[in-house]
Amino acid sequence: MSYLYLFRDDYSEGAHPRVLEALSRTNLQQEFAYGSDSFSLEAEQLIRGKINKLTAHVHFVSNGTQANLVSFASLLKPYESMIAVDSGHPNVHECGAIEATGHKINVVSGVEGRLTPEAIEETVNMHSDVHMVKPRVAYISQATELGTIYNKKQLQELSQVCKRLGLYFYIDGARIGNAIMSKEGNVDLSTIADLCDIFYIGGTKNGALFGEAIVIVNANLQENFRYHLKQRGALLAKTRALSVQFLTLFKNDLYFENAKHANVMAQELALGIAECGYSFLSATSTNQIFPILPNVVIDALQKKYAFYVWTKSVSAPNNSAIRLCTSWATPESAVQNFLNDLKQLS
Amino acid sequence: MSYLYLFRDDYSEGAHPRVLEALSRTNLQQEFAYGSDSFSLEAEQLIRGKINKLTAHVHFVSNGTQANLVSFASLLKPYESMIAVDSGHPNVHECGAIEATGHKINVVSGVEGRLTPEAIEETVNMHSDVHMVKPRVAYISQATELGTIYNKKQLQELSQVCKRLGLYFYIDGARIGNAIMSKEGNVDLSTIADLCDIFYIGGTKNGALFGEAIVIVNANLQENFRYHLKQRGALLAKTRALSVQFLTLFKNDLYFENAKHANVMAQELALGIAECGYSFLSATSTNQIFPILPNVVIDALQKKYAFYVWTKSVSAPNNSAIRLCTSWATPESAVQNFLNDLKQLS
Amino acid sequence: MSYLYLFRDDYSEGAHPRVLEALSRTNLQQEFAYGSDSFSLEAEQLIRGKINKLTAHVHFVSNGTQANLVSFASLLKPYESMIAVDSGHPNVHECGAIEATGHKINVVSGVEGRLTPEAIEETVNMHSDVHMVKPRVAYISQATELGTIYNKKQLQELSQVCKRLGLYFYIDGARIGNAIMSKEGNVDLSTIADLCDIFYIGGTKNGALFGEAIVIVNANLQENFRYHLKQRGALLAKTRALSVQFLTLFKNDLYFENAKHANVMAQELALGIAECGYSFLSATSTNQIFPILPNVVIDALQKKYAFYVWTKSVSAPNNSAIRLCTSWATPESAVQNFLNDLKQLS
Amino acid sequence: MSYLYLFRDDYSEGAHPRVLEALSRTNLQQEFAYGSDSFSLEAEQLIRGKINKLTAHVHFVSNGTQANLVSFASLLKPYESMIAVDSGHPNVHECGAIEATGHKINVVSGVEGRLTPEAIEETVNMHSDVHMVKPRVAYISQATELGTIYNKKQLQELSQVCKRLGLYFYIDGARIGNAIMSKEGNVDLSTIADLCDIFYIGGTKNGALFGEAIVIVNANLQENFRYHLKQRGALLAKTRALSVQFLTLFKNDLYFENAKHANVMAQELALGIAECGYSFLSATSTNQIFPILPNVVIDALQKKYAFYVWTKSVSAPNNSAIRLCTSWATPESAVQNFLNDLKQLS
Repeated sequence: MSYLYLFRDDYSEGAHPRVLEALSRTNLQQEFAYGSDSFSLEAEQLIRGKINKLTAHVHFVSNGTQANLVSFASLLKPYESMIAVDSGHPNVHECGAIEATGHKINVVSGVEGRLTPEAIEETVNMHSDVHMVKPRVAYISQATELGTIYNKKQLQELSQVCKRLGLYFYIDGARIGNAIMSKEGNVDLSTIADLCDIFYIGGTKNGALFGEAIVIVNANLQENFRYHLKQRGALLAKTRALSVQFLTLFKNDLYFENAKHANVMAQELALGIAECGYSFLSATSTNQIFPILPNVVIDALQKKYAFYVWTKSVSAPNNSAIRLCTSWATPESAVQNFLNDLKQLS
Repeated sequence: MSYLYLFRDDYSEGAHPRVLEALSRTNLQQEFAYGSDSFSLEAEQLIRGKINKLTAHVHFVSNGTQANLVSFASLLKPYESMIAVDSGHPNVHECGAIEATGHKINVVSGVEGRLTPEAIEETVNMHSDVHMVKPRVAYISQATELGTIYNKKQLQELSQVCKRLGLYFYIDGARIGNAIMSKEGNVDLSTIADLCDIFYIGGTKNGALFGEAIVIVNANLQENFRYHLKQRGALLAKTRALSVQFLTLFKNDLYFENAKHANVMAQELALGIAECGYSFLSATSTNQIFPILPNVVIDALQKKYAFYVWTKSVSAPNNSAIRLCTSWATPESAVQNFLNDLKQLS
Repeated sequence: MSYLYLFRDDYSEGAHPRVLEALSRTNLQQEFAYGSDSFSLEAEQLIRGKINKLTAHVHFVSNGTQANLVSFASLLKPYESMIAVDSGHPNVHECGAIEATGHKINVVSGVEGRLTPEAIEETVNMHSDVHMVKPRVAYISQATELGTIYNKKQLQELSQVCKRLGLYFYIDGARIGNAIMSKEGNVDLSTIADLCDIFYIGGTKNGALFGEAIVIVNANLQENFRYHLKQRGALLAKTRALSVQFLTLFKNDLYFENAKHANVMAQELALGIAECGYSFLSATSTNQIFPILPNVVIDALQKKYAFYVWTKSVSAPNNSAIRLCTSWATPESAVQNFLNDLKQLS
Repeated sequence: MSYLYLFRDDYSEGAHPRVLEALSRTNLQQEFAYGSDSFSLEAEQLIRGKINKLTAHVHFVSNGTQANLVSFASLLKPYESMIAVDSGHPNVHECGAIEATGHKINVVSGVEGRLTPEAIEETVNMHSDVHMVKPRVAYISQATELGTIYNKKQLQELSQVCKRLGLYFYIDGARIGNAIMSKEGNVDLSTIADLCDIFYIGGTKNGALFGEAIVIVNANLQENFRYHLKQRGALLAKTRALSVQFLTLFKNDLYFENAKHANVMAQELALGIAECGYSFLSATSTNQIFPILPNVVIDALQKKYAFYVWTKSVSAPNNSAIRLCTSWATPESAVQNFLNDLKQLS
């Protein structure tokens, strides 16, 4: 790789070194398979404690698309649908995984990437007869695809409208650590578990080699979930290799440390970019930022750094928004190098 | 775990130590995601070389059920079916994963777990009109679920009948290493690649933490396969973590060493058990053996060792067949302990 | 058509003339659509009365494969399966329609086409963990694909084993009239409704232009069934055109008259064939018979009559079983002509 | 039904009397089943002639949702999607039938219910990698759900953009007769067949008891289509009962007469309503009109006539748009009665 640093995503490295250590340390211990191992039981207990829900079920899978598709295949009857915003991950970036399990996504407009209670209610009201699917679950991701987060009040309102309308509330937590550790954030894991029926805690983007933990809070949704896992190819023989990672991430709060570091690196980048006089597509407080830069500057930066060009600016055709993404692994030196180079070019 | 040793399966441990070492060594190197990393390209090249098929496509997924379901979802039109023996893994032990992608399995009787050319031809002939599904692919696993293997002649005959009838030939290689290294075996990876359209090389059961490599030999089946991977939740952001493992397993033939060790341990067990005067459900030369023991002996052994009781003996109701499974990790001492205990009980 | 008569199936003609009359008589009356018409309400009431189940739900669809696929899509969770005999219609002659909705069929051996309680119990017992689908419904057809029927005791035993094992019991009644009017039969519609959770009454093969009436007896299975109908393309705008037919068929028991006539014609054929000295593949008392004839006789008969050659006789290679199928429309003269021709040839 | 007349839809009656006559006339003629009957062959030939495409394949199914879902299940690979406008029938009013076959609908904004070439191109361009579905077919209905039609130039432009981008072009012709006979229309069946790959001719809404004729123009899409029909429960044993209807509708152009009558009745209604001083939601020239009336007038009219209230007027909260729908069966007296009542109320 000829780049000085990749700011493309938060999964350009392997795992946090302590995660790999734990895999090595437990490696030769014989265990039962398919989630009946001692590590999985221990990790489930640990997560139950963290969210203060002693009857929650926890299942470990290898990636987020899988967590989403298995969950919705489990939650929905054939004629039931999920509601998601236009930029929602399952709507755009999962190659039709939800539809491949037979279910429609009712797409609504997001507000800075967020689903609103009004959009949920309007969607439910519009679907009034047997010719239309029946919305049954509201999907959000915390943080959103645009790097924004839901605050406590927003989550409560979503939770309430779902309850009132008889919908389940699902939270995709691929970047839930970043949302929780955001300086704007005021929700912890336990509050999230209080407000939704089912969510997942993302490992892949926050220090795990890979792995996500699906947490089923609502007891009505727990039965026979493992059949769905098996049927969709999501049940690993060595589930231990996922649960050992979550044990490590949640013992001593490494998970939150990782997320905080990623956020701090992104915000340091944002501050430096703002100081150069540039504005941003949206205000974010997590590990993704979307500065708007002159195209010539972007071209020059791309010789040294990898990142996505997000959107062309309509009002200023010589400028574009880019996405810079940091992770638990981003060294401060990479941030400083980027900012120095930007200053040179500005 | 209070057992002295688990002979339940070949995935009771983590990964071969050299695999974990490689994951650690490459851990912080930044790479592109979703299979565009340098390790995946290198591993694909390495496997292409091993099978002598320079245009084969190689894709890394996390488990065998996933490899099967994604492949058949890709191979088959909605009205097309696969042919498999009654004991075949997708027919019994994948919780309807193939049917969940919309496809029927035409089930035929196996001969010691093996699919026969006659069964394929009969099935195709029976499906003669628009009221019936159209068989389109023959599925086998090498080794079979019963621990037996196909020899070269058997594979050639299956390959020929498939070609003649316009069927694809798919080989599930969850235990392909054990089949290749069997003392009865006379097929290598390259021959397998010559004879089939698509197969997968199992890592989970042979030294990987997890991971299987799908190898698409037939160029007609290669296009857009990655869309299927993504749609079924089988495309890992950190595909690198799979390909690094396969790189390690196939450099210096660690893969074959692992398989050979497992086979040798199983055959050592078999020899000792035979010396105690017991017979076997079937003759196997891989890492699974099925000795028939008195139920009282089985009960006593189960206090120290974990294994599956396979089938009750109809002719001798006080006896049962058990399955003993060894792996790359099985120490010779475990084998000797088991045999000593068996001798005491006999 | 150059044949003197078609004995191929029981749907070679249009509808019973009184059915067409009723369609004409009601034709210009304006009605609400999608089953909210007055005829559908009246037909539902009529059928409820006939089966003595005042809370049953009745839905009209256009064919039997549709009735089956919509019902199973409605009954089953993704990981649940149905049990059927090897010759069962959904297993062989629906082009994978059940699997296309995502569900596995657990195939068991039939006894003269019949499912047995033992086969159900064995199948349920074999499916013991999360790696296997969970059988949830037992499927039979009355009459069976081989023209045989279940008597009351057999149905009661099936019903009991289903209840005991927590399975639904589904009866495909494509030829339910023929079964009920069989001289061996001792079950009426009301008894059938007592013993199962859901069944359908076949119109296509018994005097309707087309149409089947799905009857949902078990109240737990009634909710939102119409969503499934719509989603699978089974909800007709002019459902009236189906319900008017069922109204006609069940007023004055035309349905049972039709079935009886078909049975009588078949049994008259059987008697005449037996008098010529021929035997039968199986003893049937409905509108399908399977005489075993010399191939030369078959060849000669096929010049004047259309019918299916069913199976070659293994013990007598110069003979084959043929299927002769009669219907509400079969004139006695066709039967007599056939028998006369057979006598000439014998 | 206590209404003087239903303007709710164009399927409130049975079939055109000549259609029923033909069913009666052919009723007892014995025929082969599942589309191998002489009427189906003759109807296919007749339609081929009308569209001037001698190699087109024609299949008869019972309703429009079925025609759509079978066609898309046939056209699309699992990861491929269809593009449709937000008001498109499969997107809103088929209860997720397309998604139930596993496929995503890419929804774009319609212009008076019409899909635009720009929207197609933009959608294709946005779907650029393996994380997103691959748009493969553009869906329109002619006439649209809003009663508007595509003129020849618009269809040509859609056809061209599809060809250029490698997309199939599908036309839902539930009301294709009304579109062709619209006084604004300048496309006939033959032109439609020239411009698209596959379309269907709606019978249910234009004089048939029920039935739609799927016409596959593109030879690449013809193979094994009947397997899809069977698998989705769309293949009728007595396909004859559908084809006899199409024979009747297309001999002597009854189909076009029916459509013209419906259009004329709607336009007479529109003229009378405009004369009362009311405006319309959109200008239509087919058999649906959307006048905007005061709510008090609507309430009064609803006591005698059944119709849908379509949308509330935002700018004028005391007014609403209603939908009035006419058919081949609408008598001029019903139109005059309605207009007289409206004049009284205005």
